Amino acid sequence: MKSYVLTVTCQSTRGIVAAISGFLADKGCYIIDSSQFDDLETGLFFMRITFTSQEGATIEDITTGFEPVKKRFDMTCEFHDSDHKMKVLLMVSRFGHCLNDLLYRWKIGALPIEIVGVVSNHFDYQKVVVNHDIPFHHVAVTKANKPQAEARLMEIVETSGAELIVLARYMQVLSDEICQKMSGRIINIHHSFLPSFKGANPYKQAFERGVKLIGATAHYVTADLDEGPIIEQDVARITHAQSASDYVSIGRDVESQVLARAIHAHIHHRVFLDGHRTVVFPASPGSYASERMG
Amino acid sequence: MKSYVLTVTCQSTRGIVAAISGFLADKGCYIIDSSQFDDLETGLFFMRITFTSQEGATIEDITTGFEPVKKRFDMTCEFHDSDHKMKVLLMVSRFGHCLNDLLYRWKIGALPIEIVGVVSNHFDYQKVVVNHDIPFHHVAVTKANKPQAEARLMEIVETSGAELIVLARYMQVLSDEICQKMSGRIINIHHSFLPSFKGANPYKQAFERGVKLIGATAHYVTADLDEGPIIEQDVARITHAQSASDYVSIGRDVESQVLARAIHAHIHHRVFLDGHRTVVFPASPGSYASERMG
Amino acid sequence: MKSYVLTVTCQSTRGIVAAISGFLADKGCYIIDSSQFDDLETGLFFMRITFTSQEGATIEDITTGFEPVKKRFDMTCEFHDSDHKMKVLLMVSRFGHCLNDLLYRWKIGALPIEIVGVVSNHFDYQKVVVNHDIPFHHVAVTKANKPQAEARLMEIVETSGAELIVLARYMQVLSDEICQKMSGRIINIHHSFLPSFKGANPYKQAFERGVKLIGATAHYVTADLDEGPIIEQDVARITHAQSASDYVSIGRDVESQVLARAIHAHIHHRVFLDGHRTVVFPASPGSYASERMG
Amino acid sequence: MKSYVLTVTCQSTRGIVAAISGFLADKGCYIIDSSQFDDLETGLFFMRITFTSQEGATIEDITTGFEPVKKRFDMTCEFHDSDHKMKVLLMVSRFGHCLNDLLYRWKIGALPIEIVGVVSNHFDYQKVVVNHDIPFHHVAVTKANKPQAEARLMEIVETSGAELIVLARYMQVLSDEICQKMSGRIINIHHSFLPSFKGANPYKQAFERGVKLIGATAHYVTADLDEGPIIEQDVARITHAQSASDYVSIGRDVESQVLARAIHAHIHHRVFLDGHRTVVFPASPGSYASERMG
Repeated sequence: MKSYVLTVTCQSTRGIVAAISGFLADKGCYIIDSSQFDDLETGLFFMRITFTSQEGATIEDITTGFEPVKKRFDMTCEFHDSDHKMKVLLMVSRFGHCLNDLLYRWKIGALPIEIVGVVSNHFDYQKVVVNHDIPFHHVAVTKANKPQAEARLMEIVETSGAELIVLARYMQVLSDEICQKMSGRIINIHHSFLPSFKGANPYKQAFERGVKLIGATAHYVTADLDEGPIIEQDVARITHAQSASDYVSIGRDVESQVLARAIHAHIHHRVFLDGHRTVVFPASPGSYASERMG
Repeated sequence: MKSYVLTVTCQSTRGIVAAISGFLADKGCYIIDSSQFDDLETGLFFMRITFTSQEGATIEDITTGFEPVKKRFDMTCEFHDSDHKMKVLLMVSRFGHCLNDLLYRWKIGALPIEIVGVVSNHFDYQKVVVNHDIPFHHVAVTKANKPQAEARLMEIVETSGAELIVLARYMQVLSDEICQKMSGRIINIHHSFLPSFKGANPYKQAFERGVKLIGATAHYVTADLDEGPIIEQDVARITHAQSASDYVSIGRDVESQVLARAIHAHIHHRVFLDGHRTVVFPASPGSYASERMG
Repeated sequence: MKSYVLTVTCQSTRGIVAAISGFLADKGCYIIDSSQFDDLETGLFFMRITFTSQEGATIEDITTGFEPVKKRFDMTCEFHDSDHKMKVLLMVSRFGHCLNDLLYRWKIGALPIEIVGVVSNHFDYQKVVVNHDIPFHHVAVTKANKPQAEARLMEIVETSGAELIVLARYMQVLSDEICQKMSGRIINIHHSFLPSFKGANPYKQAFERGVKLIGATAHYVTADLDEGPIIEQDVARITHAQSASDYVSIGRDVESQVLARAIHAHIHHRVFLDGHRTVVFPASPGSYASERMG
Repeated sequence: MKSYVLTVTCQSTRGIVAAISGFLADKGCYIIDSSQFDDLETGLFFMRITFTSQEGATIEDITTGFEPVKKRFDMTCEFHDSDHKMKVLLMVSRFGHCLNDLLYRWKIGALPIEIVGVVSNHFDYQKVVVNHDIPFHHVAVTKANKPQAEARLMEIVETSGAELIVLARYMQVLSDEICQKMSGRIINIHHSFLPSFKGANPYKQAFERGVKLIGATAHYVTADLDEGPIIEQDVARITHAQSASDYVSIGRDVESQVLARAIHAHIHHRVFLDGHRTVVFPASPGSYASERMG
């Protein structure tokens, strides 16, 4: 049976859950899993519901029928087909661990996405990507050609229909224009526990400050470098006996996992913007399951 | 404004959420926070809702009014006053770290319970307990007097109105009879990552097996020793350079926290039995907050 | 048999370990546990050795006999009696969780220190402290009386012979003068994962930035606020559903443990300054062990 | 300059460190990094030293010259060339995440080993392996052909010169004979926190018991299934909302990392057997560092 995800954001008030769940019950829909959050500080209400349609109502019926509820509470809401694989464009420079990790998760079905292409300013991963039957685009970026390079990038985004851009250790800063155009649709992995150690060489900064844990942060990209809303973070313990170059090695696993979890949350419509903060609902039961590679 | 917690367990079917939330909306109730879980394997549905009554409906109105919904879905359900402080009886033998930890959390309001007494088979903590203005009961347990000791314990439970017994490193095994009578109302902390290292001297067992992490487990007590439903677990890393007696020291923090979290979950009606497993919903926003001691 | 700790810092060169261990062997000393670190970047060598004297050599013999080795490598070195309990002065304002935690660890012997007094700018913990038979000093601090207050503090430090000051959530900033005079002998617990969220209200800052983990940092106090060398850090996971005041509750356990671990490291002479960074050697086997309270 | 690793095990007594470090100093060797452990319970002493030869002494000189020290303390000891890449044979069945992870770490130089072949009882990963220019051996195993299959395996081990066999989710049980012949040279990853959930389907067992953390264990293989000495373990938190098949997904990252860390420890001669337990010394500074793939 087909399942759908409904995401709702609106001003918090009495009766929202009753209206939504009452509507779904009337339409013969079965709620598999539901998460909600009432932000008492901002007055915003967030909800994510996974449901199946059991009595034959089509998604069009449901969407149309929901209009009065939507209007009554002035909702921002969307119905998503759970089977839809979001189109994702990966970008990478010279560090390939996140790319390798994402390709593997994609290949075994653990990350149900469609990778519509990989863009890189280097050629290091061309062979790997092409051998996965994924289009590889080399887009060199220099100070001189930056506008043209970005135009090329946007062309690839449009042609491929990419819904999400993932900066999997892509080391070029995107222009404000792209950040705005793709707002909420670009995820970056930064190799520090933000807001500490923004900018270049965060592991070196961490080493110099003498912290006892290093971290990684996945966040939406905004025009403010390393300041976008945080989706996921994690850390690893280090000691005095490790150097900044050891951090690079130790950090790989943390970066890969933090990025993968952030993408997982985004593609399943589990992330909501709440001002500059994010609401991230837990994964639906079963959504971690994956087929075996072979 | 007064707030309440509604807990519901029933067979999973369509329309439950709509019925509950519709009812609450009709009664002028505002849902602050809601968690649900649909166990596809057992077919059971679990829900916990925190709400306030905004239009003057009393808890009696609400409880009575809910009867038809309850019947329709054949629910096991309860309404709890969020301000009610559960009456808790602590039991301890010679290791006092969990007791000290719980007394502190209680004193600063982080664990909103009423400690109706402390029972011990030793006198070590009499002074500490009495100085907190909590009744201390010394109940010696020997092979010979076990039935009388247990009768004494049950008398204390009944007189004090204890709703929950917490075995905070109480080293005597309770009889099957008490386990059954107080089923789901006794929480024990075991100093291993169950199901490994049941029974006596788990740290010694852990040392001998050469594990690289030690743990603690908070569980409901059943007649089967160390086999009851698990509420919470955690671990700490150890190395070859630590001995079993070091584990005792390292384990104290883990035990204290695991037990405190399990009690927090229980007293806020966040724990549901699902066969031999537990469903533990997250804490309601704000429920961690506590006043400052002084 | 008595045991001693030898700590050594010097320029790294060939033959240091041979010289030290050869000397100890000649003196009939048995090495129980030894840690060393060669900082290839700064060229500094750090070593910590725990040993027992088995052939009757006194610590005076050993210290005197070691002079040639010390001179040959231009060492900064010290011999410490393992049984010596470092004299510690605790300072606290209105949050008492670290104080409670330290008092408990001290009481059961898990932190082998001598608490020579507790200084507070409030009266909240006077009773608790006095009931532990520890001198309590109320030293009010206002803008007007700051110099006098600090003079009073230094008087207490001198009279009590305090070797270490622990700021266990003491919310007044110490003067540069005291920081310098007591350099490397004041440990503070800051309730953030430094260098993020320095200064006031770190949990509020963390909430506003939307991080997914909160942390605590124990560091030596320097004239630069929250910039001193870090001894220990740890973090706890939080979600969108927790408020800044929930962080206060969740953070208590992290703060208490991070501070206790840092003090444990310091009093056992496991912490070395390496520029602005610290070398922290692991605890000696058995040093975690503690007697049972009673 | 070439660096070497010396590993020593012997009965604990006075003067061992002095003898070893004195010898190395005499030979013009510089100690980069040294770890030792004195097991007070078993009376065994363990040491691992990384050093460079600075005055021209060859490894043969050093080894020969060390004979008297070795004899004096009746040591089990070995000198290893740090540049030597241990020859490793990987074995895999149908779950490829550990294989993928190890191949990646190997490719970028993070695991300095020589993969001399991959053996599988399936064909799933033939293409992946062959594209890495690594010999792939399909060795089918049935009840009937088990002896022949094992003979084939041992033939591959001998021909390839494999020093270590890694069971990277290889689901066939090896015979006692092979376990004994390759004692201390076969590492397995088991997908549970041993000693809990030995044998088949550990994630299902974990689900049924209702634990709150799942784990993975890397251990040396012995004739006793899942009872060999543990090298490394780690865990991941799960909730009631995840099914056993979700555990499979969540567990992949834990398994991959635990296995990689265990192999890292083994190939750098950091693991010592201490009865049925292991001593695992920390990684030498810099040993995590790796080149970039390209």
